[in-house]
Amino acid sequence: MPGWVVVGPGDDAAVVERARGAMDVLTTDACVDGVHFESRLVPAGAIGHRALAVNLSDLAAMGADPRAALLSLALPDPLAVEDFDALVDGLLRLARTHGVTLIGGNITRTPGPLTIDVTAVGSVRPRRVLTRAGARPGDDLYVTGTLGDAATGLKALRAGDAPGAAPLGAIERYLRPVPRVRAGRLLGGHRAASSCIDLSDGLADGVRQLAEASSVGVALDGPAIPIAREVRDWHARAGSDAADAALNGGDDYELLFTVRPAHRGRLRAVRTALGDLPVTRVGRVTRGRDLIIADGAVTREVGAGFEHFR
Amino acid sequence: MPGWVVVGPGDDAAVVERARGAMDVLTTDACVDGVHFESRLVPAGAIGHRALAVNLSDLAAMGADPRAALLSLALPDPLAVEDFDALVDGLLRLARTHGVTLIGGNITRTPGPLTIDVTAVGSVRPRRVLTRAGARPGDDLYVTGTLGDAATGLKALRAGDAPGAAPLGAIERYLRPVPRVRAGRLLGGHRAASSCIDLSDGLADGVRQLAEASSVGVALDGPAIPIAREVRDWHARAGSDAADAALNGGDDYELLFTVRPAHRGRLRAVRTALGDLPVTRVGRVTRGRDLIIADGAVTREVGAGFEHFR
Repeated sequence: MPGWVVVGPGDDAAVVERARGAMDVLTTDACVDGVHFESRLVPAGAIGHRALAVNLSDLAAMGADPRAALLSLALPDPLAVEDFDALVDGLLRLARTHGVTLIGGNITRTPGPLTIDVTAVGSVRPRRVLTRAGARPGDDLYVTGTLGDAATGLKALRAGDAPGAAPLGAIERYLRPVPRVRAGRLLGGHRAASSCIDLSDGLADGVRQLAEASSVGVALDGPAIPIAREVRDWHARAGSDAADAALNGGDDYELLFTVRPAHRGRLRAVRTALGDLPVTRVGRVTRGRDLIIADGAVTREVGAGFEHFR
Repeated sequence: MPGWVVVGPGDDAAVVERARGAMDVLTTDACVDGVHFESRLVPAGAIGHRALAVNLSDLAAMGADPRAALLSLALPDPLAVEDFDALVDGLLRLARTHGVTLIGGNITRTPGPLTIDVTAVGSVRPRRVLTRAGARPGDDLYVTGTLGDAATGLKALRAGDAPGAAPLGAIERYLRPVPRVRAGRLLGGHRAASSCIDLSDGLADGVRQLAEASSVGVALDGPAIPIAREVRDWHARAGSDAADAALNGGDDYELLFTVRPAHRGRLRAVRTALGDLPVTRVGRVTRGRDLIIADGAVTREVGAGFEHFR
């Protein structure tokens, strides 16, 4: 336990000293077998990884530095000891990667499905906080990484692709999503982003929520949406739509954020610090409240009506 | 939302300013239908109350001042809207009573039973923290309130007592346990207690855990264990054992704590501030690691072997 954990697991509650000059950032998210994952497709280690990753992704979207986590596990009776160990191990590995300390938790049995509730605690300096609400007309819209990977990986897992045909990178993205903790911290630390959200349910959903919280519209630049070659190839072979996976597929946990035109220099500094992780401009913030996606001459609404876009 | 909540519910995470000069205290606890309560016996409002109460009780046992909570709900499909509303209302009422702000949460569906995970966040000044580990031989052992009420209330609920025969106080104690937040804060604030734990699984279990954490033994004074008249009467009528309910019955959420002989004056100050809530000496801490319970000439071990004690 690091020195700032005054009382760790095993007492009635955990006691932690705060990071100097920072505010607490707290989030909780549950993963339920059969709702958020299917235990027949996802190894136990990945279940543990995902349960923490979705919470760290929320902290990343606030520009916060993750510090601690609490784990609440409801275990079904037939869960094997090896699976329990692998689940906790998967969670602890990701925690170590991000310097997160497990400070407490709770284990209970359940007559229902495996349910994992994680609460993640981070810290952030005042004025470094990223929210969904700061976008203004004229801001540019960006995403980290590539989109549609996780949805494609899940489809491939369900299809039971032969080893040679399986999009291994996309499957790994689904099984062990990488929370963009460093990107969020840099975007907040450099005060480069005017708003930020993490993509848990697809780009279209993220755009909708960010636009609503900021009372703005968004015009997406369809062809700019970053899609991995492996994902394009898999959909070409399957006769399905990679762009639809990118726009409407969930579980990517990339960051969607806006940048004021005057702050492009700050974004350059973030990009330099980030190194390999792509940051792609995918549209701009508009005054009107419409959410549209443009592909050359063709413009469509982003939303329920959206069906096919290449 | 109070001013210290910088970002409340609705964003990716909550952001809160810290209490000055204090440390964070965090705990999480789950309530699963069929494991921690039976929804056919417990009204929805009481389910919400209990889910928060068990967490506030953990904060109380640390001497912490509760500030905020996060709620993670997994709802089964047939849950009625009225039940959902009543559940949240029951939780929010108790939150208001203790000045707790709901800063975030998460709702998901589940193919399993109703599962409520609450994370409670409090604050405590350094050197005011109560842990389980501070008891020393010679300390006196105390409990707040009366014991066995909740277990008796649950028994009566299950038995379906006629209105006249039902122990209404005990049933209320089971349905809406009162977390001893003020007692915990006073015990920590006056530095009166050397160790503290809340009683979620009975006095015997609490004694065992406190003794183990402090590497001491405990000698309980059987006849001193406080049992409400209503509870004694109900067990006398039912032909069952009130003392067993007090020792081994769960869900009372009273505080069990130790006081150094030199600090009895501090405890007097706490008692005066507490007013009506009884505080009863139930034993003392011993050097040997045994856990015993004495009733006049008869002395037994506290533990698995314990069966009958009057």
